[in-house]
Amino acid sequence: MIVCDGMGDRADRAREFQTPLSVAKKPNIDALAREGSVGLIDPVAPGVRPGSDVAHLAILGYNPYEFYTGRGGLEAAGAGLRLGQGDVAFRSNFATVDAKMVVKDRRAGRRIEGRDELAKAVNEIRLSDPSVTFEFVPTVEHRAVMIMKGKGLSRKVSDTDPHIEGMPILRSMPEDEDQASKRTADILNEFTEKSYEALNEHAANIERERQRLLPANIILSRGPGTLPPLEPLAQKYSIDAACIAVAPIVRGICRVAGMELVEVQGATGGLDTDFKAKVSAAVQAMKRHDLVFLHIKAADVASHDGNFEKKTWVIERIDEAMAQVIQSVDLANDYVLMTSDHATPVTFRDHSADPVPVLVAGPDFDVSQTVKFSERTAATGNLGRLLALHLMPIMMNRLGKVGKFGF
Amino acid sequence: MIVCDGMGDRADRAREFQTPLSVAKKPNIDALAREGSVGLIDPVAPGVRPGSDVAHLAILGYNPYEFYTGRGGLEAAGAGLRLGQGDVAFRSNFATVDAKMVVKDRRAGRRIEGRDELAKAVNEIRLSDPSVTFEFVPTVEHRAVMIMKGKGLSRKVSDTDPHIEGMPILRSMPEDEDQASKRTADILNEFTEKSYEALNEHAANIERERQRLLPANIILSRGPGTLPPLEPLAQKYSIDAACIAVAPIVRGICRVAGMELVEVQGATGGLDTDFKAKVSAAVQAMKRHDLVFLHIKAADVASHDGNFEKKTWVIERIDEAMAQVIQSVDLANDYVLMTSDHATPVTFRDHSADPVPVLVAGPDFDVSQTVKFSERTAATGNLGRLLALHLMPIMMNRLGKVGKFGF
Repeated sequence: MIVCDGMGDRADRAREFQTPLSVAKKPNIDALAREGSVGLIDPVAPGVRPGSDVAHLAILGYNPYEFYTGRGGLEAAGAGLRLGQGDVAFRSNFATVDAKMVVKDRRAGRRIEGRDELAKAVNEIRLSDPSVTFEFVPTVEHRAVMIMKGKGLSRKVSDTDPHIEGMPILRSMPEDEDQASKRTADILNEFTEKSYEALNEHAANIERERQRLLPANIILSRGPGTLPPLEPLAQKYSIDAACIAVAPIVRGICRVAGMELVEVQGATGGLDTDFKAKVSAAVQAMKRHDLVFLHIKAADVASHDGNFEKKTWVIERIDEAMAQVIQSVDLANDYVLMTSDHATPVTFRDHSADPVPVLVAGPDFDVSQTVKFSERTAATGNLGRLLALHLMPIMMNRLGKVGKFGF
Repeated sequence: MIVCDGMGDRADRAREFQTPLSVAKKPNIDALAREGSVGLIDPVAPGVRPGSDVAHLAILGYNPYEFYTGRGGLEAAGAGLRLGQGDVAFRSNFATVDAKMVVKDRRAGRRIEGRDELAKAVNEIRLSDPSVTFEFVPTVEHRAVMIMKGKGLSRKVSDTDPHIEGMPILRSMPEDEDQASKRTADILNEFTEKSYEALNEHAANIERERQRLLPANIILSRGPGTLPPLEPLAQKYSIDAACIAVAPIVRGICRVAGMELVEVQGATGGLDTDFKAKVSAAVQAMKRHDLVFLHIKAADVASHDGNFEKKTWVIERIDEAMAQVIQSVDLANDYVLMTSDHATPVTFRDHSADPVPVLVAGPDFDVSQTVKFSERTAATGNLGRLLALHLMPIMMNRLGKVGKFGF
């Protein structure tokens, strides 16, 4: 199951309705489409713009309206952190504010020299409510995860990160009527103030200012989330599933779904990723697992840049790597599914609600006989138009893993 | 509305993606497909494997997630028994156990000589709770329906039938937390024990053993169900509907939906059914009814046997019988719909979640111009991909029987 992040696009009149997928030279992917069935997928529902988190929940068979519990919990799981039920995780940043709490740099210059000492100082903060503790874990560059632990917490609170520089930091506000939300917002505000007190005159920051670097003098937080109560795939469908992904959010979802995370040398989650190494690792992993989920981020990166040519280039690189699938996978026994978690049209530069093409080939999927895999051919394909949430049940039906409803 | 049970199949690479429907010579059905619209139906939802009960509820316009209340109640209705609201019906068997309650034969040899006397003895059992009564009604061979009557009963209890010979009978367990489930399981266990006491040394069984027949010395029960609260079709759509079916479960659903059951001589529910007699009866019934529902079981029987050629043969026999429809039905006035309640792929030998083809011809359905009615042509057909639950509203719309939502 290969998910090319943001690969889907949108017909553009100015380009005679061509898309990166329709112009890319991709003989291997086209062959799979011809030998298999094709159709359109709505990641959530027609007209709903999905985040990658929500889209991946749906692709793995978890209804996001039921199971989406915010970004932070999944991100924390992706970073390998342990989250208890009820803990609230935030995506946090080292940032720079002035004395009036106006944000000068949301990333404190990105490279945080002295990060470990600064993180230690944050972890030494004591909250006034002794029943609540927290854990602050730096991840990459200025990024961190902050986990609030205790009873009666809620993820329904607003961000302290204003998301724009030149604006003052925000007071977190409850986004629900209940006491837990009010309490969590108060604790987050207290934590944020105390992070400034702990960091602003910290020796590491004095050293940074001496080097004319921006001080990393506050922690801003956003995207609160809890751990979604996903029934592991092993239990839900009696399958052994593995995941190959770099993006923390995708790794997080796969981890919570109980999938084994396979590490691949050269996989970066960017345009410079080793496409062949990732596909090769997936083909290898198929020998040991019932389901291998391969996530490739690069097309989405090019899409956010609005770069049609780069996106086309990415698709051609993926196709080259797919040669291994054509050579190694036996469609009389194995299934290959390729889709996109959502469209990121290069004209829109963000996730859109457009449906995305899907192909699935295997022993008992009819041949579409389509010449090319594209948004256009998928739109009249032999799978029709489905929801991403249907993909896992459809595949598990073919694998004989679905119980009967009724008699 | 012709439902060919289990007729849908699955492309099979080993047969060059052909199915019984795609290879069968069926000029009449193909003509209806060409003259009408075609598409795919998901019986419940993509990836959901339906039982025949659940699938038929959906085809008749009742959402199975709302209205499916177990098999037993529908089966009892199919056998013509009266069930009150709250009564729980079980599918029961005469069976043979040894003194250790290990099942020797789940069917007590199938032919139950002395069945009426044995049933009388079962009906004389007195339960310790006088507020609960039961009715035990033999149907065909070793089969029976047992109806538990009283207040505070629940269908959420497990079977006493172990479903495998050589295993001890099972204690029924509550499958819900409530008191009603616990109580119903206790009563079923008491009934099962007392059935052994009543039957084991019964004169009819002593006679059976003398004849070297297995004693029918216990009643095993499974598939508890209550009557689903279906709004009759006459009320829901102001139509007069009739049903031609042999399978008790289909008859039961149609009866609960308030349809008239039309009996047809030569209809058996098996491979030896008189296809022409059934279709002829349906064509006749169209003169007196707004909707005639015709159920043909044979394709499912061949499918469960995994017999591609027999299934093809069944489809060809159905097609021969359909000649009467071509001759007698005026597509300028009447509608003909043909579909399958679910796929039963011959390679899988059980109900699968695959979508099934549907055709519908009539005065105001566009012509598909498709050459052949098959899973493949239906997949790109002009009806698109729908849920079985949509069929009745779609047809009732054409008949002008659907009220407006909004103003």
